[in-house]
Amino acid sequence: MLDQIRNDFFEGKIKTQDLETEVFVRLYKSDPGKVAEACRDAAQLRCELLEKKSGKSLPLIKGAKMDNCSLVEGKTILSGIELKIGAAMIPMGYAGPAKIRGQYVREDEEIYIPLATNEAALVAGVQRGLKAISLAGGLKTLVHFDGMSRAPLIEAPDIYAAREFIEQIGNNPAYISELQACIPDPFVKLKSIEPYQLGVKVFLRFVFATGDAMGMNGATKAAAEIIRYILSKKPDWRLLTISGNLCTDKKNSHINILHGRGKSIETEVFISNEMLAKVFKPGVNGRSVEKVVFHKCYLGSCLSGTISGFNVNAANTVAAFFAAAGQDLAHVVSSSSCFVQAEEVNEGLRFTVSFPCLELAAIGGGANFGTAREVLELLGCGNRGKTPEDNRSVKRLAEIAATAVTALELNTACAQAAGYEMADSHVRLARGEK
Amino acid sequence: MLDQIRNDFFEGKIKTQDLETEVFVRLYKSDPGKVAEACRDAAQLRCELLEKKSGKSLPLIKGAKMDNCSLVEGKTILSGIELKIGAAMIPMGYAGPAKIRGQYVREDEEIYIPLATNEAALVAGVQRGLKAISLAGGLKTLVHFDGMSRAPLIEAPDIYAAREFIEQIGNNPAYISELQACIPDPFVKLKSIEPYQLGVKVFLRFVFATGDAMGMNGATKAAAEIIRYILSKKPDWRLLTISGNLCTDKKNSHINILHGRGKSIETEVFISNEMLAKVFKPGVNGRSVEKVVFHKCYLGSCLSGTISGFNVNAANTVAAFFAAAGQDLAHVVSSSSCFVQAEEVNEGLRFTVSFPCLELAAIGGGANFGTAREVLELLGCGNRGKTPEDNRSVKRLAEIAATAVTALELNTACAQAAGYEMADSHVRLARGEK
Amino acid sequence: MLDQIRNDFFEGKIKTQDLETEVFVRLYKSDPGKVAEACRDAAQLRCELLEKKSGKSLPLIKGAKMDNCSLVEGKTILSGIELKIGAAMIPMGYAGPAKIRGQYVREDEEIYIPLATNEAALVAGVQRGLKAISLAGGLKTLVHFDGMSRAPLIEAPDIYAAREFIEQIGNNPAYISELQACIPDPFVKLKSIEPYQLGVKVFLRFVFATGDAMGMNGATKAAAEIIRYILSKKPDWRLLTISGNLCTDKKNSHINILHGRGKSIETEVFISNEMLAKVFKPGVNGRSVEKVVFHKCYLGSCLSGTISGFNVNAANTVAAFFAAAGQDLAHVVSSSSCFVQAEEVNEGLRFTVSFPCLELAAIGGGANFGTAREVLELLGCGNRGKTPEDNRSVKRLAEIAATAVTALELNTACAQAAGYEMADSHVRLARGEK
Amino acid sequence: MLDQIRNDFFEGKIKTQDLETEVFVRLYKSDPGKVAEACRDAAQLRCELLEKKSGKSLPLIKGAKMDNCSLVEGKTILSGIELKIGAAMIPMGYAGPAKIRGQYVREDEEIYIPLATNEAALVAGVQRGLKAISLAGGLKTLVHFDGMSRAPLIEAPDIYAAREFIEQIGNNPAYISELQACIPDPFVKLKSIEPYQLGVKVFLRFVFATGDAMGMNGATKAAAEIIRYILSKKPDWRLLTISGNLCTDKKNSHINILHGRGKSIETEVFISNEMLAKVFKPGVNGRSVEKVVFHKCYLGSCLSGTISGFNVNAANTVAAFFAAAGQDLAHVVSSSSCFVQAEEVNEGLRFTVSFPCLELAAIGGGANFGTAREVLELLGCGNRGKTPEDNRSVKRLAEIAATAVTALELNTACAQAAGYEMADSHVRLARGEK
Repeated sequence: MLDQIRNDFFEGKIKTQDLETEVFVRLYKSDPGKVAEACRDAAQLRCELLEKKSGKSLPLIKGAKMDNCSLVEGKTILSGIELKIGAAMIPMGYAGPAKIRGQYVREDEEIYIPLATNEAALVAGVQRGLKAISLAGGLKTLVHFDGMSRAPLIEAPDIYAAREFIEQIGNNPAYISELQACIPDPFVKLKSIEPYQLGVKVFLRFVFATGDAMGMNGATKAAAEIIRYILSKKPDWRLLTISGNLCTDKKNSHINILHGRGKSIETEVFISNEMLAKVFKPGVNGRSVEKVVFHKCYLGSCLSGTISGFNVNAANTVAAFFAAAGQDLAHVVSSSSCFVQAEEVNEGLRFTVSFPCLELAAIGGGANFGTAREVLELLGCGNRGKTPEDNRSVKRLAEIAATAVTALELNTACAQAAGYEMADSHVRLARGEK
Repeated sequence: MLDQIRNDFFEGKIKTQDLETEVFVRLYKSDPGKVAEACRDAAQLRCELLEKKSGKSLPLIKGAKMDNCSLVEGKTILSGIELKIGAAMIPMGYAGPAKIRGQYVREDEEIYIPLATNEAALVAGVQRGLKAISLAGGLKTLVHFDGMSRAPLIEAPDIYAAREFIEQIGNNPAYISELQACIPDPFVKLKSIEPYQLGVKVFLRFVFATGDAMGMNGATKAAAEIIRYILSKKPDWRLLTISGNLCTDKKNSHINILHGRGKSIETEVFISNEMLAKVFKPGVNGRSVEKVVFHKCYLGSCLSGTISGFNVNAANTVAAFFAAAGQDLAHVVSSSSCFVQAEEVNEGLRFTVSFPCLELAAIGGGANFGTAREVLELLGCGNRGKTPEDNRSVKRLAEIAATAVTALELNTACAQAAGYEMADSHVRLARGEK
Repeated sequence: MLDQIRNDFFEGKIKTQDLETEVFVRLYKSDPGKVAEACRDAAQLRCELLEKKSGKSLPLIKGAKMDNCSLVEGKTILSGIELKIGAAMIPMGYAGPAKIRGQYVREDEEIYIPLATNEAALVAGVQRGLKAISLAGGLKTLVHFDGMSRAPLIEAPDIYAAREFIEQIGNNPAYISELQACIPDPFVKLKSIEPYQLGVKVFLRFVFATGDAMGMNGATKAAAEIIRYILSKKPDWRLLTISGNLCTDKKNSHINILHGRGKSIETEVFISNEMLAKVFKPGVNGRSVEKVVFHKCYLGSCLSGTISGFNVNAANTVAAFFAAAGQDLAHVVSSSSCFVQAEEVNEGLRFTVSFPCLELAAIGGGANFGTAREVLELLGCGNRGKTPEDNRSVKRLAEIAATAVTALELNTACAQAAGYEMADSHVRLARGEK
Repeated sequence: MLDQIRNDFFEGKIKTQDLETEVFVRLYKSDPGKVAEACRDAAQLRCELLEKKSGKSLPLIKGAKMDNCSLVEGKTILSGIELKIGAAMIPMGYAGPAKIRGQYVREDEEIYIPLATNEAALVAGVQRGLKAISLAGGLKTLVHFDGMSRAPLIEAPDIYAAREFIEQIGNNPAYISELQACIPDPFVKLKSIEPYQLGVKVFLRFVFATGDAMGMNGATKAAAEIIRYILSKKPDWRLLTISGNLCTDKKNSHINILHGRGKSIETEVFISNEMLAKVFKPGVNGRSVEKVVFHKCYLGSCLSGTISGFNVNAANTVAAFFAAAGQDLAHVVSSSSCFVQAEEVNEGLRFTVSFPCLELAAIGGGANFGTAREVLELLGCGNRGKTPEDNRSVKRLAEIAATAVTALELNTACAQAAGYEMADSHVRLARGEK
């Protein structure tokens, strides 16, 4: 039967988007226990077709099975993503134990942080940073904002009508409640509205609580429903776009820096000069690290023309953590925004990192299955909140992510305070030189 | 023997960074044919240790094997990344065939583009965009810059000395040749130097040709050697940091927009209104798409305060392509910078996307092995250039990456030109609703 | 006696900062009716000294008298600015009548707008823009924000203390009242506090109502008093700077765009294509102006890397208006920030300009005396509000300023929609060519 | 006769733009020696008309005479600016002597710097800064770039044609010579072309040498002629706008920071801690000033979202200097861009300021006449270069302007390093308190 399905598929008699369901029905007789198998078969068949067309072989992709399918109403298979052929694999290591003095991670826990990356030296760098942090007594962490935003753009008949509406919204809890009633999803709660006017255009930046989910899908759907409702009462207004890029999703943006998106987090550690010299190299101390951070993360970043890149190499850790933990990799763009500060105080170094917009999920999307789910469980972020306000898992995840980033920032800043070391160690580790 | 190694490892008698080599030597008697096995065993042991410490089970991670180890001088194993425990798996689908009228992709080829993502609707969106492009006769692509940059920061004794040195560099081919001699790596060639002065500080933004490699490691090492040489002749100068963030690596930055980094690429397609209405929805035409793109990608992006985010959702495709093709995921930050333009012309839509700084690799790092290598081979980007100027594979890769991004930009812009569709389709696909 | 004073002054026996008072006492016997004369004499003497030292003659400066001195406690003269030698003179013309359909300017008024500039074509350009606006029925204007900000930066002992304080501030009217009590100036009222945390640093962006004054001095003094009070209760905190550049005063800044500073204003006008062709040139219509504005004010501005320069040439009019009306010329930096939008609608052009942060004064500083006072009176902005909330004069001024800027934006955009005209007319007017 | 002209003018029989010539012909019989009188009369008549219409009196404006008219071909009067009514007057003081160790100012000169401002404390602040600089041996200055840019935007038929043209331009001296031939103005020389492609759009950022002139008019006219020539050979291309905002004129912009505009200048001074404590307050030293500058000019500015505002209050001095010296006040926007650095070195403070884009004129526009001309002569910048490369006067002017700005930056930074002083002194001086 699989051969028959293969034939039909290769001959174009089965549409590629129907393949999972076709296999499920024909080969597995719609047995609900065989959803995963059907999906695996479908992915395999697609790989075979690609191999046939291209003349290339794809053994590893064929062998990489992702069981993220589900069955809808007992009949149709939802394949998670479309036209699935398998999985991409990215090497995963781990760093730890991390010592975190947080609100969601207790000081006495030992946290091991998986990181998926192709970059040699990255895991080792995080590891050395965590070592310094541990010796210094652990990293203080603080999650102080939580909200997922989506900003539709609508058009008023004139500038006065635009303003009148904006003022009606103002700080108006009753109106927020009215709009909340439009949202069918019990995991999405409208927290606030930031309105902006440019001529006759009105941006409404809705901020939602979305529990342990990252919340972009929920926020988009809720925003659409709300706008539908608003416009239903304003016949002379119209929708320009459901997302006016003021959200801002997956682009660098200063509004995310100022107002936050996802989680906003602070981290802080003090390390004595003595400790620094011990973990890093001679010459690494509060003052030399302060100088590196000023020149690189501020003077150089300012000259480069950045809006949020006031850090050493935060995106490296954010990307590795996101890849390991099933996060949306496009969110690396904004989530890697951060401000690193290094100051010589009390014969040591005060090192802080401020993350205004770390977008994270403990449930939903990639967080639900596969290696990512194991990572989340390993990190103790497996609990799934039952309300929009119940977000302990994702906040814990935020503290851990911020810790990993802080560790590498610290390590790389200290490495550069010791001169040429960075260039050398990177290449050495990448090439296996001593 | 493995049990014995496990015991020793659990008891801390074997350092975790030595584990691969230990297994290789003790279990496999340093048999060069058993490197992969040794690494797999080591990853497995680390997983077991994590399971023991955490009480969680990691079957999928344990089962995800990445054979990216290598043997150094027949004795020591280089594990690719440190403390490897396995791999992260991200669902992979594909879109295509794409029709590309490029310089490195021929018009008559059928390109199938693998994309790794957790986001439902993404692959389907790229697919619909590619369909419109195909119907319109294919996408024009143009790679017009290639260069990897690293910008050390050094300090002069005073502003005059700083200037004197900068003017010596100027457009001085002889000096560039002199510096080239410092670079031992035959795959790294110094193309140009962009000097900047801020007070007594001098940033030297070196731009290198690095063949089919992304080139960051080669560029860093070369920059370090060059600076060592320069400073050896300037005893009263000193190194502040080997990377002054003017490179700019893994942070959004306007200098990357203006001067390029990695590859700079343009894409262009004209689609008639008739075709648009056919592929998308009624109401989608040159004028309505132009309006969406202006309001979202310019008016909204400008208000958000961005330096490079003049697009619809480029990071989604960039991230999915990078994850599939073994690229550095931290490069999504800058590589997703692009300018989308949509204009009503000749009863249709001219749609162009400009990518100033797409950082890509056809060899090196994650591009060398595993599922990523299969993806590169499938895309016809498997050839490995033999000189810094031989970069056909990575330029072909650039054309394909830009095509995938253009397809989703086009699709999402058109979807929004049809009103609420985006929100609905996203959620519908994510939730399996009709 | 004046000769004697001159001698003493030239010989250094009188300090230059005491010169006004010295003349007042010795020559005019401290006659309160002779303050202006004393100041004029002092300025003249300083000019003479400069002439003597430099060998250059300064007849025009000597002849330009500014009577902005005042007498303190009957004894000491306060010279307005220090070391006064006279005045700079800038040519002033006017444009008008302007037709404004505002909240503070009535539609049936005829407003004549003085502009001081050295640039030929500027006044003529405003004039042509106003003509088009008048023919179109006048300009809608809307002032929707009023507030002057100052943002001290203080340091907390750790990230938790910083947060705790920020949360105490929150939306806490009682605390705002408590802080208001610190402010001795009856014209300064604390409206809100925007707190930001970066590590252990806390920025407090205070927003004040300051009546008809621009308010920077009042805001600075009030901020200093408030911080003194706050820190008096927090012995382990300290002041880093009374202005942390988040205000943001006299630098371009995106926070001013998002949150406003001074006044936020919208303007709007619709002009039919027929009217455009009549006032401007053939080929100027809604669509061609829309295209110019997109390409210049958005595509080009975005590529240039700006945070607020989404306009044609707003700074020209802002500067000319500020120079004429005695405004702080350093505020041209931020006040010229604006978003121009041009859209083809209903066979015509909808033209809007959004000014997020126009910093203006109807009283205080340069607005109090001289030619500037005459300009303010001429504009009907002579009334001086008696409370922080009484700001009718300055809001009227804002509507007029925004009208002048809108007129030139419109004119220059339309000129460019007609091709080469701009370059030609500029040079022609500057050189007196036909 | 004047009464008759007044009548005719008030009754609308004389167009306001013809008034100067009308008076010249009718009252002064076209006597070439009476141009100034005719213009003064015309300005007076316009004031009278405004007074009549508004019911306000304008004695000071009427009395402020600007003789910036000229006679064209013996017949027509060119009034400098249109609809002139007189002049705006801004109080002028001076600071000095300044000690400058520059390339165009000799160390042994005594420079007195006029500043026109309404802001109390500004001149005194510059004065104190200059005092510290003098005690420290003077300010090193360095002008290292000179060029005025204008960037037209043109449209190619497709992305390949756009690229082909850009590559033709490249570093092509022959082509630059060919284009130079289009420029009739002997004071304008094309130095280089920076081409940028976005899709089918090509920005050509032309950089010109313009001698002692600021050069904007010359550059605009030259750019127009060049584009006319280029497009004459490219029938399928078209002009989008003669200025694509990549110039960038009168908007903040990062390209001006990176590539320079007008003059680029560095200043540097070292002041010992002992000297700092003497001129400023106890507690002011290299370290405390370094801290203020980091927190205010970098940390705060970065958070505010700026592209060029890495300074304390540069716009204050730039505006005051520009108003005094007849510069284009709209250029304060970009010219006030600068990077201040303060570093503790050798028991003292190294203080540098980098000005990437100071736009200045020693001839042309407001620099040609009136109080401004006297200021330029006083500063020793009266010589008028005879070629595009002869720009000694304007470079000298740049050194002096940069010195004034550096002085106030230094003073205000030091004042803030002493805590509350800034707020206090500002208000005290403004209000005449002790």
